[in-house]
Amino acid sequence: MTLVLPRGWTEDPAVLDARRLDRSGVDPGGRPRAVVIAESVDDVVDTLRHAHAERIPVVTRGAGTGLSGGATAGDGTIVLDLSRLDRIREISVADQVAVVEAGVITADLDRAAGEHGLRYAPDPASVAISTIGGNIATNAGGLRCAKYGVTRDSVLGLEVVLADGRIVRTGRRTVKGVAGYDLTSLFVGSEGTLGVIVAATLRLRPAPDEVATAALYLPDVDTAAAAAAALTAARIQPAVLELLDGACLSAIDPRGPGGAFLLVQTDGAGAAIEMARAHEILAGFGEVRVAADPAEAERLLAVRRGALPALERRGRVLIEDVAVPRSRMAEAVTAISGISARSGIEIATMAHAGDGNLHPILVLPHGRELDDEVWAAAGEVFTTALRLGGTLTGEHGVGTLKRRWLADELGPDVLELHHRVRSAFDPHAILNPGKALP
Amino acid sequence: MTLVLPRGWTEDPAVLDARRLDRSGVDPGGRPRAVVIAESVDDVVDTLRHAHAERIPVVTRGAGTGLSGGATAGDGTIVLDLSRLDRIREISVADQVAVVEAGVITADLDRAAGEHGLRYAPDPASVAISTIGGNIATNAGGLRCAKYGVTRDSVLGLEVVLADGRIVRTGRRTVKGVAGYDLTSLFVGSEGTLGVIVAATLRLRPAPDEVATAALYLPDVDTAAAAAAALTAARIQPAVLELLDGACLSAIDPRGPGGAFLLVQTDGAGAAIEMARAHEILAGFGEVRVAADPAEAERLLAVRRGALPALERRGRVLIEDVAVPRSRMAEAVTAISGISARSGIEIATMAHAGDGNLHPILVLPHGRELDDEVWAAAGEVFTTALRLGGTLTGEHGVGTLKRRWLADELGPDVLELHHRVRSAFDPHAILNPGKALP
Repeated sequence: MTLVLPRGWTEDPAVLDARRLDRSGVDPGGRPRAVVIAESVDDVVDTLRHAHAERIPVVTRGAGTGLSGGATAGDGTIVLDLSRLDRIREISVADQVAVVEAGVITADLDRAAGEHGLRYAPDPASVAISTIGGNIATNAGGLRCAKYGVTRDSVLGLEVVLADGRIVRTGRRTVKGVAGYDLTSLFVGSEGTLGVIVAATLRLRPAPDEVATAALYLPDVDTAAAAAAALTAARIQPAVLELLDGACLSAIDPRGPGGAFLLVQTDGAGAAIEMARAHEILAGFGEVRVAADPAEAERLLAVRRGALPALERRGRVLIEDVAVPRSRMAEAVTAISGISARSGIEIATMAHAGDGNLHPILVLPHGRELDDEVWAAAGEVFTTALRLGGTLTGEHGVGTLKRRWLADELGPDVLELHHRVRSAFDPHAILNPGKALP
Repeated sequence: MTLVLPRGWTEDPAVLDARRLDRSGVDPGGRPRAVVIAESVDDVVDTLRHAHAERIPVVTRGAGTGLSGGATAGDGTIVLDLSRLDRIREISVADQVAVVEAGVITADLDRAAGEHGLRYAPDPASVAISTIGGNIATNAGGLRCAKYGVTRDSVLGLEVVLADGRIVRTGRRTVKGVAGYDLTSLFVGSEGTLGVIVAATLRLRPAPDEVATAALYLPDVDTAAAAAAALTAARIQPAVLELLDGACLSAIDPRGPGGAFLLVQTDGAGAAIEMARAHEILAGFGEVRVAADPAEAERLLAVRRGALPALERRGRVLIEDVAVPRSRMAEAVTAISGISARSGIEIATMAHAGDGNLHPILVLPHGRELDDEVWAAAGEVFTTALRLGGTLTGEHGVGTLKRRWLADELGPDVLELHHRVRSAFDPHAILNPGKALP
């Protein structure tokens, strides 16, 4: 095999520096050896053949919006930038399927599907700036997961370039299919360590004609969690169920109302009926505001959306991401408040309450580093999630930030299986080494 | 390590003979060396330690209802029968989760969930006789998949005994979670070749309060497929969408109506609204019968349920299971009719039309073996599915019956990855060797 230096290869320091970090705040130090800005799948193949032959680590990158350090590139690595693989190859209305390249911005796909009355359901907060490839690599979540599942639930098939440069296709275009192992799901969430995802066949769903939105302020998180649990007990399936704690609310407005905020959306043909049932239940907990029109719905959603920017105005934020069984959610938020009080580090929690996914936001004074005390507090948050039967990361991934806690969740035997699987796909460990696994 | 002959070990020929076949019609010949009827996870551990040390193949078995030969046990194997691991360990209403052992009958779980207003969504046709463990091992489907997904979509976590007898836990109790690779999905559908699934944490969903049912007879499959496509185009999400072709209908009643039959259910808070929309659309294709009450709904469902028994009365059936993109469904049914005409083998097709999953049923005269001509016709069915962008098997698995076609679907590179993954989990290839992979 003749090695070709991939097209798009550059060693320009400005280009390297612009692509060696993500949004995690982690700096691995040093400088990548090169960046390849791929314009085609062939460029990816050439890059991996080269890297495989020369045993050079490859860090694949979409938009670099990850929060766990999975796309940070250390000294001597090749950064493989897929952002220009941004073609929507196909949208099939009849099959409710899209075939897209990895660099497509998630919101662009959703918009393109919307022109046909369809949508791409997963909606991570970064939807406007992150790529489908990155979403798949981290199995990104979002608000609508409560009803429509995470990224994995929308991925039918993948086109992947293996570590040695071979192109393979996994999965299929059909919703059902059990020929062979589910390698598609194995690649989803593997954070660039098993192969380079260059394209995906994705499931689209009908965009709901009806959406109903309501919100209420509550005295505290315990009451908000009880209200959320009452919806579950009534077997209502919200499309969105979001919770903000008092620390979030006071960042938004120190003199504002309430110790907790709950936002509910229902959607689909039964949206109004479900919302009427939800209203009846929630009215037992507080004064419910049901949006009379889309503009009012937007104002209610704006409260939720405003929380992170409000916290970011107060300091440097470390956005955490744990999940617990829904029944343990209030306990988790209370425990996190306790960690905040003990450590003296401000922690505000917002939650996708429909699936027990909490985002405790550590707010540090501007200029403070992510020092040992910060990590000690974050570590306590992770330990709390595990103690309550939950997980270290609901939707952001392990990256570099959570590697040291992963063994606590998985245990040594499962971790050993992970390393064996990784070796089966990437025997020379050139794909994003040092990420996702300890 | 001291080897213990597992409790429940027997070499009684009657017990062996009762457990060496499944419902595929495949007979591997010979006789297993032993059967272990496990009463506990410890029995499974002891069995695998023994088998691993002695390099004896282990065929894990639930109820033996599989249709692909995945649970057939050849000469010298150990059959590991999990049917007595039938405890529902927990049903959590608050978390909408069940924790069950592998031998639980699927309908029993659904019934237990139903006592709390919940349900276990996957409903393979064998639901009353098959086990959760078997359902997971084959990633079983069913009628409700159209809206609620396949078994994989309801499996949150697994307890697995590895080939060497170690017990591991994958996944979690939360809906979201991205710590580590998705080994849970990898075990789902792996047909007993990666580990022995002894328990599972399963997602339950609210049982819908409202269900609406309608059906109509149509002149031919093309028209039925067009009617189904019109529902998709109108962005209606049926909970059930089933199609019978003319050959099914004439087996049910040679003088009965129509060349095709379409059954539609909607469910949830918007069931009636969605059904009204569906009715309006379907009325353009034929005379729609909307069930006025549950008894009439049962009569409409009975048509669908009656098809297979009617075919079984005509001869020995080989139940096939391919899936194609929904837009290619009519083409697939027409091609299958052509295969039937050319081969002289009666083939009737029923389909989960909501997800393009076809069950062509080859009906052979009583006493006829599954000879080369039968397999040639079946092979043409598989090739047709692949040509139309589909898969060899939508929900039954590869087992032994479809191994020889698997490479055509997966290709050599993906197949090589499969073998590497298998070796990572089971280095001595003692777990159901000769199944699922060529």
